[in-house]
Amino acid sequence: MSSNEPKPLNTAKGQTLYAKARTLIPGGTQLLSKRPEMFAPDTWPPYYVQAKGAEVTDLDGNVLIDMSICGVGATVLGYADPDVDDAVKIAIDRGSMATLNCPEEVELAELLTDLHPWSDMARFSRSGGEAMSIAVRIARAHTGRQVVAFCGYHGWHDWYLSANLADDSALDGHLLAGLQPKGVPRGLKGLMQPFHYNDLEGLRKVAAEHGSNLAAIVMEPVRNEPKPGFLEGVRQIANETGAVLVFDEITAGFRLCTGGIHLTLDVAPDVAVFAKALGNGYPISAVIGRESVMSAAQETFISSTAWTERLGSTAALATIKKYQQVNAADHLIKAGKRVMQGWKNASAASGLKIEISGIPPLAHFAFEAPDARKLRTLFTQLMLDRGYLAKDAYYAMVAHSDAHIDGYAAACGEAFEIIAHASKSESVDKLLRGDEAHSGFQRLT
Amino acid sequence: MSSNEPKPLNTAKGQTLYAKARTLIPGGTQLLSKRPEMFAPDTWPPYYVQAKGAEVTDLDGNVLIDMSICGVGATVLGYADPDVDDAVKIAIDRGSMATLNCPEEVELAELLTDLHPWSDMARFSRSGGEAMSIAVRIARAHTGRQVVAFCGYHGWHDWYLSANLADDSALDGHLLAGLQPKGVPRGLKGLMQPFHYNDLEGLRKVAAEHGSNLAAIVMEPVRNEPKPGFLEGVRQIANETGAVLVFDEITAGFRLCTGGIHLTLDVAPDVAVFAKALGNGYPISAVIGRESVMSAAQETFISSTAWTERLGSTAALATIKKYQQVNAADHLIKAGKRVMQGWKNASAASGLKIEISGIPPLAHFAFEAPDARKLRTLFTQLMLDRGYLAKDAYYAMVAHSDAHIDGYAAACGEAFEIIAHASKSESVDKLLRGDEAHSGFQRLT
Repeated sequence: MSSNEPKPLNTAKGQTLYAKARTLIPGGTQLLSKRPEMFAPDTWPPYYVQAKGAEVTDLDGNVLIDMSICGVGATVLGYADPDVDDAVKIAIDRGSMATLNCPEEVELAELLTDLHPWSDMARFSRSGGEAMSIAVRIARAHTGRQVVAFCGYHGWHDWYLSANLADDSALDGHLLAGLQPKGVPRGLKGLMQPFHYNDLEGLRKVAAEHGSNLAAIVMEPVRNEPKPGFLEGVRQIANETGAVLVFDEITAGFRLCTGGIHLTLDVAPDVAVFAKALGNGYPISAVIGRESVMSAAQETFISSTAWTERLGSTAALATIKKYQQVNAADHLIKAGKRVMQGWKNASAASGLKIEISGIPPLAHFAFEAPDARKLRTLFTQLMLDRGYLAKDAYYAMVAHSDAHIDGYAAACGEAFEIIAHASKSESVDKLLRGDEAHSGFQRLT
Repeated sequence: MSSNEPKPLNTAKGQTLYAKARTLIPGGTQLLSKRPEMFAPDTWPPYYVQAKGAEVTDLDGNVLIDMSICGVGATVLGYADPDVDDAVKIAIDRGSMATLNCPEEVELAELLTDLHPWSDMARFSRSGGEAMSIAVRIARAHTGRQVVAFCGYHGWHDWYLSANLADDSALDGHLLAGLQPKGVPRGLKGLMQPFHYNDLEGLRKVAAEHGSNLAAIVMEPVRNEPKPGFLEGVRQIANETGAVLVFDEITAGFRLCTGGIHLTLDVAPDVAVFAKALGNGYPISAVIGRESVMSAAQETFISSTAWTERLGSTAALATIKKYQQVNAADHLIKAGKRVMQGWKNASAASGLKIEISGIPPLAHFAFEAPDARKLRTLFTQLMLDRGYLAKDAYYAMVAHSDAHIDGYAAACGEAFEIIAHASKSESVDKLLRGDEAHSGFQRLT
């Protein structure tokens, strides 16, 4: 794509529909991370009409290669994967819903517990936040306790956002900047106890203070590289306090292996939660766990009609089978490494300093500059002009070929060069065709 | 079907898989109302392989006409509706997920707010309980208050189950028997204030005591027949206190008209919540409301990846359009009335006393006998033998033809006759091939 003469993308139809959407949908979209303002206000195409493989056609007919967050990390195989879609279509023809249950959910429970030998039982829902709420309810029901030690981002629900009911003034500095807890009951205040990733001492302090009332330790097993002994230490604290160790695998799961990323780390939780990659974009989420813990689900009430439809488990079964067949994780790791190398090369050639982080299938970079947010907005704009959906992150898909990545890396080189010149000549504002991107919320890492 | 010689249904394969499911899934299913034990333990077929129109093929190959709760009220058009399914399959081919948003969600927001002229904005999620949580979060964020006056059943989430955090001993007698609040934080205690349907005085008392902290009044607009002035009185109390009036239309919506049942009642809420019938079995739920209230969604954090996939809004658009085309509500009302008449006839002919309740598209009956639960279990068993999925409730589908209903009514006549004889001769236990059905939770009506 980068060999074509770059030209400003016309996204007029998309912008018009988005302007209308903002009058009909508070916030304009259903997900903060899908707001065009998070990428490049006024220039980012808000809507798609078609997505296939790594290619997205927007509402204005622009055909773009998606090298950004790729279905927000849900479509690991690629858009409209033929094998998953065929399985789903067969399930549609056989009836996606009935008064009776679908056998696929039993098959999925068996497959997930087989993939994770420490686990015995599973429950399913349809979104990630919902699944995290189930996990926390089960942990609280199992222990008869209330406090949750947590690290990272775990969704929009009351149990989690209550973490921000602490001192309003402390919000931005300490906890989850950008996650407003308005409307969350104040009676939940104090139940969420934060700790930082790789800070075992911090978790020990929480355990010392709240141990006898600690229902769960909730965390993503990998965000940064775990320090030697950190996860083992977390496991030990859970054992000592009797808290349920919950690994949130919604973002990382199925990227470094076919299953939770914790399988690569030799530390087993008591409960693990999957969504996103589990169904290649079809809504399905899962809570798996040890029988002793999961059985508590029967002593509380966790039940929903939508969780019984057939497509979610059908899609998950087909997706997992294809992950195994094509060795998806290998592909994602290779693609991510190649992209990271592309960023490094572009940085070295242009002199633009960046910091690269994340695991290869979920790679990030940050411009090291005071006006970093403007620079990343310009990066997105320049990449759009070159036919790429891109931002300061790359979520790998199996559909990304070497040719996609090489083309993307070449375009990155051009974009970094232009940004470096603009930065030096203080002409970044002049080049930007819209406002700078908004910032999202911050994870507690 | 009733002309065939009735014979015990062989559901051996289904029972075997369900026995396995109970070791893999706490509770065996994802929804309390889909547990075979809720219908007829050991005889009810737990699983289906195919569902089309009103016909369901179970795991053992039995072909049954579904005259029971029909996809738990989600599949109003019938199973595997060709028009909805075709629209969904096209959306699958065009990519069900991408980094960009799908334009269908804007179209659905516009359609729903057009159908409900009092409303301005919409948000979407994928399950009913989740949508109710969004509605309550928005109401609390909008008002800056916490207390919720409620009537009826509204899902599994903490905000709602906290109603049962009152005195444990009072549970069965007063509030929601069968809904265990284990694992719900105790800090939520006292926020849920119950009132009974048609008891305006009861709601007035809640308002008098909690008015200045009343965030929302949450209720199903119709469960029983509303007394004249009741809903208008509720609306007035909401106006006087500033509480957000939330109509839970998850069960009733799209059955008496194309839209919320409240459209037939001339009382508008501030927020209405839809799920089930909205997508004919595809997971989609919606929160619609007045702009002044819905805008509060932007001051809190309500966001999920799964809510952005394309099939939910695609299915809802196709479903609503078909409701309009085929005049679905008319069909459902007629079918329900015919079924209710069938029950009346069977009751009169057999001398078995029953009480009929509900609106025609969601009709119920109850045997008036001390061993009523055994009798309804036997009813289900006898109807299975005659080729029908049936219980003490009938949720109408457009796919139900007069022939289906006539056949069902004739089978009901036979079943009632047998039950009446068994009841008189005290041989009900002898006829039952399994345990009696379990009871579900009780709605606060």
